[in-house]
Amino acid sequence: MNNRIVTISREFGSGGRTIGKKLADRLGIPCYDSEIIQRLADKSGFDEQYVKNAGEYASGGFFSTLANRTFGPTNEDYLWRIQYGIIESIAKEGPCVIVGRCADYILRDKADLLRAFIHADITFRAERIVKVYGEREDSPEQRLRDKDRKRAAYHRYYTDMKWGHAQNYDICLDSGRLGIGRCVEILASLY
Amino acid sequence: MNNRIVTISREFGSGGRTIGKKLADRLGIPCYDSEIIQRLADKSGFDEQYVKNAGEYASGGFFSTLANRTFGPTNEDYLWRIQYGIIESIAKEGPCVIVGRCADYILRDKADLLRAFIHADITFRAERIVKVYGEREDSPEQRLRDKDRKRAAYHRYYTDMKWGHAQNYDICLDSGRLGIGRCVEILASLY
Repeated sequence: MNNRIVTISREFGSGGRTIGKKLADRLGIPCYDSEIIQRLADKSGFDEQYVKNAGEYASGGFFSTLANRTFGPTNEDYLWRIQYGIIESIAKEGPCVIVGRCADYILRDKADLLRAFIHADITFRAERIVKVYGEREDSPEQRLRDKDRKRAAYHRYYTDMKWGHAQNYDICLDSGRLGIGRCVEILASLY
Repeated sequence: MNNRIVTISREFGSGGRTIGKKLADRLGIPCYDSEIIQRLADKSGFDEQYVKNAGEYASGGFFSTLANRTFGPTNEDYLWRIQYGIIESIAKEGPCVIVGRCADYILRDKADLLRAFIHADITFRAERIVKVYGEREDSPEQRLRDKDRKRAAYHRYYTDMKWGHAQNYDICLDSGRLGIGRCVEILASLY
């Protein structure tokens, strides 16, 4: 298998983004993460912060907008189509790592993919979001559960893939148990 | 992490058992698979073939026996308790690889574990069961789906774990995409 593109899906706080960046550095190829958000904001005209959430999470209004689809596509649908196109064009530019954004699904038939999923238990992730992102919530665990739930709902709606099911990925790694460095090593060895 | 025991859960036909045996050979430690069935048959007095299925799959009568639990424990419950004890005692004997039998769940608090899940797409598995096991069914795919369903139901009932959810394992590998040899290498590197 000649894995030209690595997609990394991840649980919030698991270090998937860090793993993606370190992996790309190691392999000497670009890592797309915030760059996608930037392109998406530019192309759609929406605010960057809005795009960041709406392109990956089911928002509070997501389910009510589902019911409103008889009135035509929603903002989420519009963003999804633009995101789809951006990821397809990134994949054509050459080998890279793409973090999140349903890239595994979008590129499923088009690229030579290694599809990774990074997860960790809630204690590891809660400690990490407090330490790395300086999260100040009373309950980082509650925030993680909420993020997981919304990300899973978004994935399910647009991709019909069950997020976090091993069968959807070539490799799934527990970054809390194995360590971020070891995860990078394993993925690099598969490239 | 000092992984003294490796547990391998696997989809039927994915090569998980082969990976377990090759891994154990590589590490110079025992691999428990059919040995567990043998011990279970000896201890329970049940036939080996019965034990092989009843200790890992929900049988045709499994769900009707669930309804009959008001009449006391079933044969499956009895086997589960013996299996639990056998796996605990194997873990005390020293480092090893254990294939299947819910060992990941049984040892979750007791041993220094590396919990692996091996899966592959249905085409890879169907070809493999015909080639390796000489399966002669008209539809090996249908047989695989049936096996998957019964194994998932058994796991869910006795362990309350969702079988095949990445979050339940330290590492999940697609043996069809990565190859059996590469799976062995990755697991050996983590030991």
